[in-house]
Amino acid sequence: MGFVLHPRLMADTAVIVDWSLSRVLLMNDKRFPWIVLVPRRPDITEVFDLDAASRTLLTNEIARTAERLKGWARTHGGADKINVGIIGNVVAQLHVHVVARRKGDAVWPGTVWGAGQAEHYGAAELLRVVSDLRDSL
Amino acid sequence: MGFVLHPRLMADTAVIVDWSLSRVLLMNDKRFPWIVLVPRRPDITEVFDLDAASRTLLTNEIARTAERLKGWARTHGGADKINVGIIGNVVAQLHVHVVARRKGDAVWPGTVWGAGQAEHYGAAELLRVVSDLRDSL
Repeated sequence: MGFVLHPRLMADTAVIVDWSLSRVLLMNDKRFPWIVLVPRRPDITEVFDLDAASRTLLTNEIARTAERLKGWARTHGGADKINVGIIGNVVAQLHVHVVARRKGDAVWPGTVWGAGQAEHYGAAELLRVVSDLRDSL
Repeated sequence: MGFVLHPRLMADTAVIVDWSLSRVLLMNDKRFPWIVLVPRRPDITEVFDLDAASRTLLTNEIARTAERLKGWARTHGGADKINVGIIGNVVAQLHVHVVARRKGDAVWPGTVWGAGQAEHYGAAELLRVVSDLRDSL
């Protein structure tokens, strides 16, 4: 079977765009500029499940996201550090979190995973941020 | 100035080996099989600070570590998932956590960063695990 986005990821995010390898998602949590990259390959849970060419693509997509999200965040509250996480303890489908963090944000210097409750965007705000990030990433 | 390992990383880990790009460290916390890769480049804090060739090297070293650590963990309590994190909110020097996780470990399914207190290896045990991982990674 082909690639199908895990329903939990679908519920928690909005789609920004599809890149060569990854579906690019915005986490619906306005506490942080938070992107999730999901390689569009079926049945992949670990980075070493990807072949070398796909791993290189993923790395380039992570670096691109990190750099441009940091740039975007400069005009949206600022960013002191990009956090990257490949966890998958709850949702096994391989996905990569790329999160812009700033000193004094809701959980700084802790990590965002499992920290507090997500604050959802309003519907119009979500559409606006998705559109804005589609242009910026 | 050339590469110098951050003193906090030095204090919290033991050196296993140097690879093409990264210094490979064992986190001194026996709750988890926990490797830290530190690219031996000066003044790097984000993945996009690395040039494309170094990024590819890093990706391959992460994938190698993840796969072999999962193999090693099979005979040391088991591993259900590898977690990879590039955080750097406290220690800015670019470093990559690669952690073997199992259902029911000390903080499952939460993440390890900032979770509870490290449990240090005994001195002889630390030497043994470092030597064992030097052969296995």
